[in-house]
Amino acid sequence: MQASRYLIATQKETPADAEIISHQMMLRAGMIRKLAAGLYTWLPLGLRVLRKVERIVREEMDKSGAQEVLMPAVQPSELWQESGRWVQYGGELLRMQDRHGRDFCFGPTHEEVITDLVRNELKSYKELPANFYQIQTKFRDERRPRFGVMRAREFIMKDAYSFHLNKESLNDTYQVMHRTYCAIFDRLGMDYRPVEADSGAIGGSASHEFHVLASSGEDAIVFSTDSDYAANIEKAVALPPQGPRPAPTVDMKETNTPGQRTISDIANFLSIEASTTVKTLLVKAEEDENGNSGLVALVLRGDHNLNEIKAENLPGIAEPLTMATDEEIEQAVGCKAGSIGPVNLPVPVIVDRSAAHLADFVCGANKDDFHLTGVNWERDLPLPRVEDLRDVVEGDASPDGKGTLEIRRGIEVGHIFKLGNKYSSAMNATVLDENGKANILEMGCYGIGVSRIVAASIEQNHDDKGIIWPEAIAPFEVAIVTLNGHKSPAVQEAGERLYTQLRQAGFDVLLDDRKERPGVKFADIELIGIPHRLVVSDRGLEAQTLEYKGRRDADKQDIALDEALPFLINQSPRNGL
Amino acid sequence: MQASRYLIATQKETPADAEIISHQMMLRAGMIRKLAAGLYTWLPLGLRVLRKVERIVREEMDKSGAQEVLMPAVQPSELWQESGRWVQYGGELLRMQDRHGRDFCFGPTHEEVITDLVRNELKSYKELPANFYQIQTKFRDERRPRFGVMRAREFIMKDAYSFHLNKESLNDTYQVMHRTYCAIFDRLGMDYRPVEADSGAIGGSASHEFHVLASSGEDAIVFSTDSDYAANIEKAVALPPQGPRPAPTVDMKETNTPGQRTISDIANFLSIEASTTVKTLLVKAEEDENGNSGLVALVLRGDHNLNEIKAENLPGIAEPLTMATDEEIEQAVGCKAGSIGPVNLPVPVIVDRSAAHLADFVCGANKDDFHLTGVNWERDLPLPRVEDLRDVVEGDASPDGKGTLEIRRGIEVGHIFKLGNKYSSAMNATVLDENGKANILEMGCYGIGVSRIVAASIEQNHDDKGIIWPEAIAPFEVAIVTLNGHKSPAVQEAGERLYTQLRQAGFDVLLDDRKERPGVKFADIELIGIPHRLVVSDRGLEAQTLEYKGRRDADKQDIALDEALPFLINQSPRNGL
Repeated sequence: MQASRYLIATQKETPADAEIISHQMMLRAGMIRKLAAGLYTWLPLGLRVLRKVERIVREEMDKSGAQEVLMPAVQPSELWQESGRWVQYGGELLRMQDRHGRDFCFGPTHEEVITDLVRNELKSYKELPANFYQIQTKFRDERRPRFGVMRAREFIMKDAYSFHLNKESLNDTYQVMHRTYCAIFDRLGMDYRPVEADSGAIGGSASHEFHVLASSGEDAIVFSTDSDYAANIEKAVALPPQGPRPAPTVDMKETNTPGQRTISDIANFLSIEASTTVKTLLVKAEEDENGNSGLVALVLRGDHNLNEIKAENLPGIAEPLTMATDEEIEQAVGCKAGSIGPVNLPVPVIVDRSAAHLADFVCGANKDDFHLTGVNWERDLPLPRVEDLRDVVEGDASPDGKGTLEIRRGIEVGHIFKLGNKYSSAMNATVLDENGKANILEMGCYGIGVSRIVAASIEQNHDDKGIIWPEAIAPFEVAIVTLNGHKSPAVQEAGERLYTQLRQAGFDVLLDDRKERPGVKFADIELIGIPHRLVVSDRGLEAQTLEYKGRRDADKQDIALDEALPFLINQSPRNGL
Repeated sequence: MQASRYLIATQKETPADAEIISHQMMLRAGMIRKLAAGLYTWLPLGLRVLRKVERIVREEMDKSGAQEVLMPAVQPSELWQESGRWVQYGGELLRMQDRHGRDFCFGPTHEEVITDLVRNELKSYKELPANFYQIQTKFRDERRPRFGVMRAREFIMKDAYSFHLNKESLNDTYQVMHRTYCAIFDRLGMDYRPVEADSGAIGGSASHEFHVLASSGEDAIVFSTDSDYAANIEKAVALPPQGPRPAPTVDMKETNTPGQRTISDIANFLSIEASTTVKTLLVKAEEDENGNSGLVALVLRGDHNLNEIKAENLPGIAEPLTMATDEEIEQAVGCKAGSIGPVNLPVPVIVDRSAAHLADFVCGANKDDFHLTGVNWERDLPLPRVEDLRDVVEGDASPDGKGTLEIRRGIEVGHIFKLGNKYSSAMNATVLDENGKANILEMGCYGIGVSRIVAASIEQNHDDKGIIWPEAIAPFEVAIVTLNGHKSPAVQEAGERLYTQLRQAGFDVLLDDRKERPGVKFADIELIGIPHRLVVSDRGLEAQTLEYKGRRDADKQDIALDEALPFLINQSPRNGL
């Protein structure tokens, strides 16, 4: 591509409303432009990267034996009513009516459509397993779209759906997809981790997320120091503390704690560690058969965080997890939220494993401005139901018994699920087995956030000058910068000759032949993040040399003009092309 | 691809609701499935064809210097309000509200979005001309979606938009796009014609449509027998008849014509040719400044059809063309529609050129059950305003003065427009010219119906056995059919070896290794339309031969097993690959 005929829409200023590096750099490098909240146009330079990501995803999916299809973006409500999600999906589902007043949505995902297709097309176990995928524009009406294409409303996703006669076959394909995802993220040049994840609202029995590690990540990812264990913090099990609970050493006493509401208030006021206190949170209980729902108290150590996913997955607790209001607390307990405690609490209590291991702890007295100190389970109150309720913290023992846990930030770029028969059962998708008997299909589903990958890659690959693309997805692999080519026919001609030579050898080349000052061109090429830069100048041509600089290199070097191609082949991981 | 692991979803029965060949064959060959009215899923086999079409379109657009972008499918209403189309576009625009109650639409086209982008990004004439394109899913909420992907609601379009400092530059790019479209349709192997077209509701000064000739086409296309003249019938000029109008030979008389309402009624009743009668149609006139609108009479020869596009483009006539209701006719004229005539008609009259050339003609008497015979212009009534109001008919003189006109049916697969400043002016899109003065941009736009091309190709390439793909877009170029491969390891092995060999040579190959009877496999391969078929059988292997049959061949032939590759290279237009 010749830059003089190409939209190089770089910007010097960092856009004020872009919070994270990738969003800033995609705007500054001229890769995307915002049309409306969560809606972005991909400019030519950005689209080149997106298409390269798509191609890698497609090639590896094809290699895995998955078959590419393309389903409509617009989906009729009837199928979503069959699965029950027309109501469940909530505000993220962009609904619309056609000219005849019939309900449709802009598909955020395609379980219903593919299940409908498969129940019509596949009749026999002989046609299984089958795995269908598409690379398509989706829409999720995020309440707070942000971070550019990282969390956009309209985005490009690779979604795949597999169908099986039984769980063994599903397990096999699940493993194939796990390997395929690793192959994809390897080729994309990403530093990523597959981690155990909660199956969440989409349903199903097991799932893994693929996270790109980056400090801007919205998820906390947990790793073992000594094993392969890795999980989303949502899912990571906090083991019970080892050994018996210490014995009580002091008596329970009521203490006046005027105006002390938070754990840190209390810890400061009483000069104790937060880890010797407990906090008591009231949440909605599951509705009974009459549709009534009371409250449940969740008790955690003062320094621990409630893990909402773990809590809402427990029987007896309303899903999604809903905190009691101040009025409900006042009515049920007779005090404000900051003074609740488990002693004589008139609602059912569930205590976290770590909190259940405390002795001589401090808690609210269920009376405003009063706390209890020296509280002990099984002496001052019965030990209630014990569960894993908290987020793990750094230094916790790894659930697999090997090493301790570390926590890093991750960006979710892929997710694989064993769906089981959630959709096939609701939609009666069956095939005949070897005995001619109708069997409900087992399903898996497998997503990759194609457009998000572009942003995630930048989060991992940048410096203060701009983006540093991995070669596999760089918009151009090589930039040839001509210095004053519009004044020097020799430079212009040498640049064009080199451009043709490198393109013929299979390189993606940008010839920066713009009438701009060298400093402007160099800054743009670095901001855009092109891995290899060659400079053609009059001075170089006199010496029959080019100047080379790799995007990650500190220094530039001169190379012989007629050695450019072998030099580049040697630099590139595609060695020998 | 191995057919045993691939969705071959062929059907024997012709689907009852598919009217045209391409729709029937795309369903029968397992290329598409209907999700809802006008919404289709592309199955693996169909998607392969679609992707090949896309690739050809993309390669030629890139070659033309156009730059690929990707704009959001969902567009905010604000831009459509700026251009005035939020109201004008009518029922085909699929509108929706997001969770915050803001209005959006699913883009049927992207003039507004690209104009908004360009007014923000391009500042100087130095950045012009620029031509941006995308290949994207669009939605038009057709009142009557039909013919499968030929007229679907959701479809894939290549849309391009060019921007220019002046009309000369627009003309240059328009010519480049005209040539690019010819290159695309040539590579797609289509029998097509570029024809002059009406610029229609999208606005602008000139346009050409690219039509694929097929009897199922929804458009009538007009050609000269002796020149390159070609136009959509909407646009084709009907020249005025040559020579002076014949002189009157009879007196005007009123004739009782009880119950005779249509032109053919009258012609039969009076035993005359329809071409000696006129019909008078009442339509709405343009609103005056007070919003009132009267009627206008359009007079045509009895055997001619009103060309609605020509009529509504005339000053004084409401757009879109709106026929007067029975009540309005009764009120204005005092008779029913079948008895109107131009003599003493109390509304303004426009007469078609051919009707204006008649002498001694028959028309309604503006009195139920009465007609006038022997009517003559400028004797019995003044000659009103004369315009070209009718569709041309076969045998009319070509508007370029060379030869006469023929009419064929066409499927519109491409359309190029000179938009002028319709959008740039409404949205104030300017750049600075050489003198630093802001200039409203000139625009062109260029569409190709990517998904429609797949259907249009089938309309041109099929026989009673199925589709006959041009090689460039065949889902597979070669089918290797193994006969009883599941019983004969030698056949299976030879098939797989050949499959590998041909794939390594760059052919797209389907290995039909299914456990099906030979007849079933042969029928499927013919229905699917794969250009080259090779059969591996035990009998053939004994003689070291394969059986070859081209999809268009009447007979099969034996070829040497080890000559398969050179033989195929010789058969294929990609000769030598």
